[in-house]
Amino acid sequence: MDPNKESVDKILGDFEKHIQTYQYGQSPIELYEPISYIMNLGGKRIRPLLTLLAYSLYRDDYEKILTPAAAVEVFHNFTLMHDDIMDNAPLRRGKATVHEKWNPNIAILSGDVMLVKAYDMLLEVEKEKLPSVMRLFNKTAAEVCEGQQHDMNFESRDSVSEEAYIDMIRLKTAVLLGFALQYGAILAGAPDADAGRLYEFGVNIGIGFQLKDDLLDVYADQAKFGKQVGGDIISNKKTFLLIKAKELATGEKQEDLKRWIDAKEFDKEKKVAAVTKIYDALGIRELTEAKMHQYFEKGFGQFSSLQVPNPKMKALLLQLTQDLANREK
Amino acid sequence: MDPNKESVDKILGDFEKHIQTYQYGQSPIELYEPISYIMNLGGKRIRPLLTLLAYSLYRDDYEKILTPAAAVEVFHNFTLMHDDIMDNAPLRRGKATVHEKWNPNIAILSGDVMLVKAYDMLLEVEKEKLPSVMRLFNKTAAEVCEGQQHDMNFESRDSVSEEAYIDMIRLKTAVLLGFALQYGAILAGAPDADAGRLYEFGVNIGIGFQLKDDLLDVYADQAKFGKQVGGDIISNKKTFLLIKAKELATGEKQEDLKRWIDAKEFDKEKKVAAVTKIYDALGIRELTEAKMHQYFEKGFGQFSSLQVPNPKMKALLLQLTQDLANREK
Repeated sequence: MDPNKESVDKILGDFEKHIQTYQYGQSPIELYEPISYIMNLGGKRIRPLLTLLAYSLYRDDYEKILTPAAAVEVFHNFTLMHDDIMDNAPLRRGKATVHEKWNPNIAILSGDVMLVKAYDMLLEVEKEKLPSVMRLFNKTAAEVCEGQQHDMNFESRDSVSEEAYIDMIRLKTAVLLGFALQYGAILAGAPDADAGRLYEFGVNIGIGFQLKDDLLDVYADQAKFGKQVGGDIISNKKTFLLIKAKELATGEKQEDLKRWIDAKEFDKEKKVAAVTKIYDALGIRELTEAKMHQYFEKGFGQFSSLQVPNPKMKALLLQLTQDLANREK
Repeated sequence: MDPNKESVDKILGDFEKHIQTYQYGQSPIELYEPISYIMNLGGKRIRPLLTLLAYSLYRDDYEKILTPAAAVEVFHNFTLMHDDIMDNAPLRRGKATVHEKWNPNIAILSGDVMLVKAYDMLLEVEKEKLPSVMRLFNKTAAEVCEGQQHDMNFESRDSVSEEAYIDMIRLKTAVLLGFALQYGAILAGAPDADAGRLYEFGVNIGIGFQLKDDLLDVYADQAKFGKQVGGDIISNKKTFLLIKAKELATGEKQEDLKRWIDAKEFDKEKKVAAVTKIYDALGIRELTEAKMHQYFEKGFGQFSSLQVPNPKMKALLLQLTQDLANREK
C-alpha cells in the first residue's frame, strides 16, 4: 500500500469520525436533522482536508484542529443547502435535497443555523488567533455569496465575458479552497508569507478545478462519469465552454449555436452532439484546457516554491491536489 | 424638554448616523441593496439601544461600541428578511418585503450575507472579549432560529400548550433582548453577575412585550393602532389569547370558536367581533394581562436590584423599557 495514501486516509478517517460525533443541536428536530442529513451525504471533504494538510505542513498534531477544520465543511454544506433552494435542484449527490425532502422553509432556516454552527466551530481556534481567522472567514463567506449572486445574474444575461466568468468562479468556489489552506497554515503558526502563498495556490487551483468541471461535463468518458455527459449543454448553462463558443462562433456555427440554445423542445442527445460538434470545430476544448493549465501552473508553481518543515506532507498535499486536477469524473 | 428623553434621542441619533455610513459591500448590487433597504425601513432600534444603554450604565463612551451594537440590529433584520420569506409576508413596516420587491432567491442570499456582516460588526469588540461575546451571540442566534422553527411547527399543530408557547416566544424574540443587554454590559466590563441579571431582565420583559403584542392585536384602540385590530384572529394565529381560549372554552363557546377557526369564508369584522366576544366571556384578556404582568414584574424586579455606577442612565433604561411595556400601539 502507498504509505502516502495511508496518511491521507488516516486524516480523513479521523476527521470523519470527529464530525460524526459532533452535536449540532437537538430541538426542534426539523431544524437539526437536515444538518446531519446533508453532512452525511458524503462528498470528498476536500476543504477540511486541505486545512488539515496545510496545518500538517508545519505541525504534527492535526487532531487538535479537527473542529476548526469542520467549520469549513459545515460552511460549504450550508451554501449547498441554500444554493439548492435557489437552483431548484431536486438531487444532491443522488439523494433528495433538503428543500425537497422537507420543505424550502426548513432548508432556509436549517441552513441559517448551520452558518451559526460553523462560527461555533471557528470559536474552537486558539483565542489569540480568533480575530484574524474570523476576519478572513467573513471575507470569504461574503465572497462566496457574491459569487452565487453573480452566477444567478448570469442566467438572465444574454452574454457574459470570459473575465466576468472567471471572476464569478473565483468567488463562488475558488476562494473557499484558498481560505481552507491559508486557515490551516495560520492555525499552525506558519509565516504570513506562506499562509498567503497557500491562499493563492488554493484560489488558482480552485479556478482550474471548476474549468475541469466544465470540461468533464462535455468531454468526460460516460462510462467513468457519475452523471449525464452534456448536462450543461442541455440546460444552456453558461460555462466557460459556452461563453467562449458564443464569443468565437461566426456565420453558420453562430446561427446553429443560437438555434440550439433557443430551442424550447429538442432531442437531448441530438443537442449534446450538435453543440459538442460546434465546440470541436471552434477548438473550445483546447482553449479551455489551455486556460485551465494556466491556472494550475500558476497555483502549483506557488506551491512548489514553499519551504516547509514537513516535506513528506508537502508531497501528500501535492499528490491530492494533482489527483483532483487530473480526475476523470 | 425632558433631559432623559434628550439623552436617549442623542444615543439613537448617533447610532442612526453611524449605521447610515456603514458599508456592507458594493457588488453585486442585488446582494447589497436589499441590506440597505431593510435596514432603512426604520423601526425603533430597540435592540442596539438596549446594548448602548446597558453599556452606559457602566461607562460614558458609548461612541466606541456603535459598530458592535449595530451587529444586533443587523442580525435582527437578517431574521426579518428570512422570516418574511417563510411567512410569505408581502409587507414589512408598510413597505414591500425584500422577496416581494426583488425575489426569494435574493432574499435568501442577501440575508445570508447580512448574517456574515453581523459577525463582521461583532469583530469590532475588544480582542479579549471576542470569544465570550461570540459564544453568547452564537447561542442566541441558534435559539432565535429554534424559536422560528417552533413557531412554524405550531401552525400545523392542532393544539399548543401555554408552556410551549411561552418557550417559543422566549426563543424567537426574548433571548435577543436579553443578549442585547448582557452584551452591552460585557462590553463595558460590568461584573458577570450584573451582565447575567441584565440578560434575565431582557428575557423576562421580552416575553412580556410579546404578550403585549398579542393583547394589542385584539384590544388596541383602532385609532391609535398602526395596523388592523384583529389581524391575528382573522389569520387564526396561535397567540397566547387563542391558546388559552382553546384550553378554557367548553360547550357552546368551544363550538363557536371552532366554527370560526375552521371557516374558510367569513366576514372579517364579524369573525373579529365574535372571537373577541368569546375571549371576553372567558376572561382571556385578564388572564393574558396577568401573565404579562408576571413577566414584567420579574424582569423589572431583577433590574431594580442592580447597583450601577450611573443611576441616571439606569433611570433612562427603566423609562424606555416601561414605555415599551405600556405602549398602546
